[in-house]
Amino acid sequence: MSQRSIQAEKLGILGGGQLGRMLIQSALDFNLDIKILDPDENAPCKKVSGEFVIGKLTDFDTVYNFGKDCDIISIEIENVNTDALKRLQSEGKKVFPQPEVIELIQDKRIQKQFYQANNIPTAEFILTENRNDVSNYKDFLPAVNKLGKEGYDGRGVQVLRSESDLGKAFDAKGLLEKLINFKKEIAVIVARNEHGEITSFPPVELVFHPEANLVEYLFAPAEISKAVALEADTIAKKVISKLNMVGLLAVEMFVDQDDQVLVNEVAPRPHNSGHQTIEANYTSQYEQHLRAIFDLPLGSTEALIPSAMVNLLGEDGYSGQAKYEGLNAVMEQKGVHIHLYGKKLTKPFRKMGHVTIVDRDVAALKEKVNFVKQTLKVIA
Amino acid sequence: MSQRSIQAEKLGILGGGQLGRMLIQSALDFNLDIKILDPDENAPCKKVSGEFVIGKLTDFDTVYNFGKDCDIISIEIENVNTDALKRLQSEGKKVFPQPEVIELIQDKRIQKQFYQANNIPTAEFILTENRNDVSNYKDFLPAVNKLGKEGYDGRGVQVLRSESDLGKAFDAKGLLEKLINFKKEIAVIVARNEHGEITSFPPVELVFHPEANLVEYLFAPAEISKAVALEADTIAKKVISKLNMVGLLAVEMFVDQDDQVLVNEVAPRPHNSGHQTIEANYTSQYEQHLRAIFDLPLGSTEALIPSAMVNLLGEDGYSGQAKYEGLNAVMEQKGVHIHLYGKKLTKPFRKMGHVTIVDRDVAALKEKVNFVKQTLKVIA
Repeated sequence: MSQRSIQAEKLGILGGGQLGRMLIQSALDFNLDIKILDPDENAPCKKVSGEFVIGKLTDFDTVYNFGKDCDIISIEIENVNTDALKRLQSEGKKVFPQPEVIELIQDKRIQKQFYQANNIPTAEFILTENRNDVSNYKDFLPAVNKLGKEGYDGRGVQVLRSESDLGKAFDAKGLLEKLINFKKEIAVIVARNEHGEITSFPPVELVFHPEANLVEYLFAPAEISKAVALEADTIAKKVISKLNMVGLLAVEMFVDQDDQVLVNEVAPRPHNSGHQTIEANYTSQYEQHLRAIFDLPLGSTEALIPSAMVNLLGEDGYSGQAKYEGLNAVMEQKGVHIHLYGKKLTKPFRKMGHVTIVDRDVAALKEKVNFVKQTLKVIA
Repeated sequence: MSQRSIQAEKLGILGGGQLGRMLIQSALDFNLDIKILDPDENAPCKKVSGEFVIGKLTDFDTVYNFGKDCDIISIEIENVNTDALKRLQSEGKKVFPQPEVIELIQDKRIQKQFYQANNIPTAEFILTENRNDVSNYKDFLPAVNKLGKEGYDGRGVQVLRSESDLGKAFDAKGLLEKLINFKKEIAVIVARNEHGEITSFPPVELVFHPEANLVEYLFAPAEISKAVALEADTIAKKVISKLNMVGLLAVEMFVDQDDQVLVNEVAPRPHNSGHQTIEANYTSQYEQHLRAIFDLPLGSTEALIPSAMVNLLGEDGYSGQAKYEGLNAVMEQKGVHIHLYGKKLTKPFRKMGHVTIVDRDVAALKEKVNFVKQTLKVIA
């Protein structure tokens, strides 16, 4: 039997941000040959990738030419040129997640229709064409108004509470989603390899920043009943199966007041809701992504210890050369791991790093989350 | 209070092998600016360091010029030009471990005299000048004959069992050390920062390869009594204190038939006996080294879970482009982590990587060690 040598293959990643950087950190263990494409010459991956190409992720020629000498192409951001990826795929390259999956997820309207068509529970919705169209649905309020395309990191999503909010509706193709009065927001990260093997990480509980619409911190495991956890796990596995996707998929879900689990959004790549797996689980989400796309056996997703993750966002009111205040104080705490993303410049709510905290005692874990949130600041 | 910004300092590392590579992996989390010096243009650090300088580690000018634009200089191998490091230190650079410590450790004769002078238990020894001199001590046999300088990774060490072995004694300055009939070989890794804070990792148990005189695998924690563990811990802390050293120090020790603990050798840097801390401990040895040399608070050394580490040595009889046989089979096992060092060429007993195994059950852990040893091979 001639065994495949993954060390002899070149992996191209579209996007060179923090997710790519942590993926490279993990890929070093397998001695993989990685090439990065990113428009920013100071992207977090710049100094740590053997090959770094500067170019626009949404440009056909750039993506196509980047991928031509790769064996496998993957992403760390969804907003990429999928036509180029389809062309590369048709020429025999492995593209994981598949371009069709990326396209489906790029457009929140198609994403919602996919859930509906596959009986995957999700909040009730109405597709809207423009601002004027939204105003037809004042009886549907309060609702979340989402842009169909190009929403990212909290952008392109807003709540319309009442008729007086209709004027600020997005004036482009989008949707209205019933505002869910949820108890919890949770996420399950699933992975699937080419053999069709599927694994899921235990559900985590997400707490969002009230202003920035970004994950502020998370806990793992989520404090939910076994039944809710099982339901979330089943849904996440159903989504990746129905997508027929190869790679890693983060499935964000609401748990409503009646313990119904509803899919909110998905991301077909390593995700903010899985950072803590680096320290807290047998296999990290980054290693799992690599295992999935190289068709290796998937690793155990079990947690070694309860964990939390605090996003280190640029402090409001500061822009410029980043400085980290309180680093020593948080590093004195047992089980605290700092991850800085190598971004020189900070601005309000920019994701500059994260902190993972592990502790066998969940109450102590929560105290440390508060301590880290209060102590560690990114200023300029 | 103006806080030190470690991100604004440049760290120069002498040596670009696997230890440097894993140090860089860890340093990414702190976004440190690292520069590497190594004579081999294909060294494991080559593709992963922002700045990689090719040059001889034992050459004064090379080391001095390399260090001139650094703020901190450290090592991942002892065989470096310490005169250049002393000069850099005198010009205000921080050099950790200190050049005097490196010099002391470079010469096994001085190392042994240091233990003797500081009442640190170690095997009885005689300093020898050359082969002829060794033959004066036939009554001291069986003994370990060590070269004073430049022994590394099993080289420069041999056993002289009886008079008939005297002809193969090293013909250079060295020493004879009473052969210890040990029950176990163990190691404790200690760290000390500039503030004088000291931490130690739990003792690990080392099993050496019979031919290659290299660590074949290790278990953590070592299966020793609490009293022996405490004695080993006390000795390791005493060594780093007496050396007045800043950085990480691996202390290898024998446990003899009477449960006496004797220091064998030390290494002032991340060490083969601490690889498993990446997955199994709250803080890895690599992060601890960085914390120590940047005078950060030292991290918790506690283990999360029992672990083992199997060195992945080039299979005897194979030289050339490395291939990894059995990778998928070992990756199917829960708690198995592969670490390949990025070396293109294999040769017999070359350290090509290592495998960490974690398991809550020690018996299962040992079974997995055997499985990995039997299954995963580096061939050409």
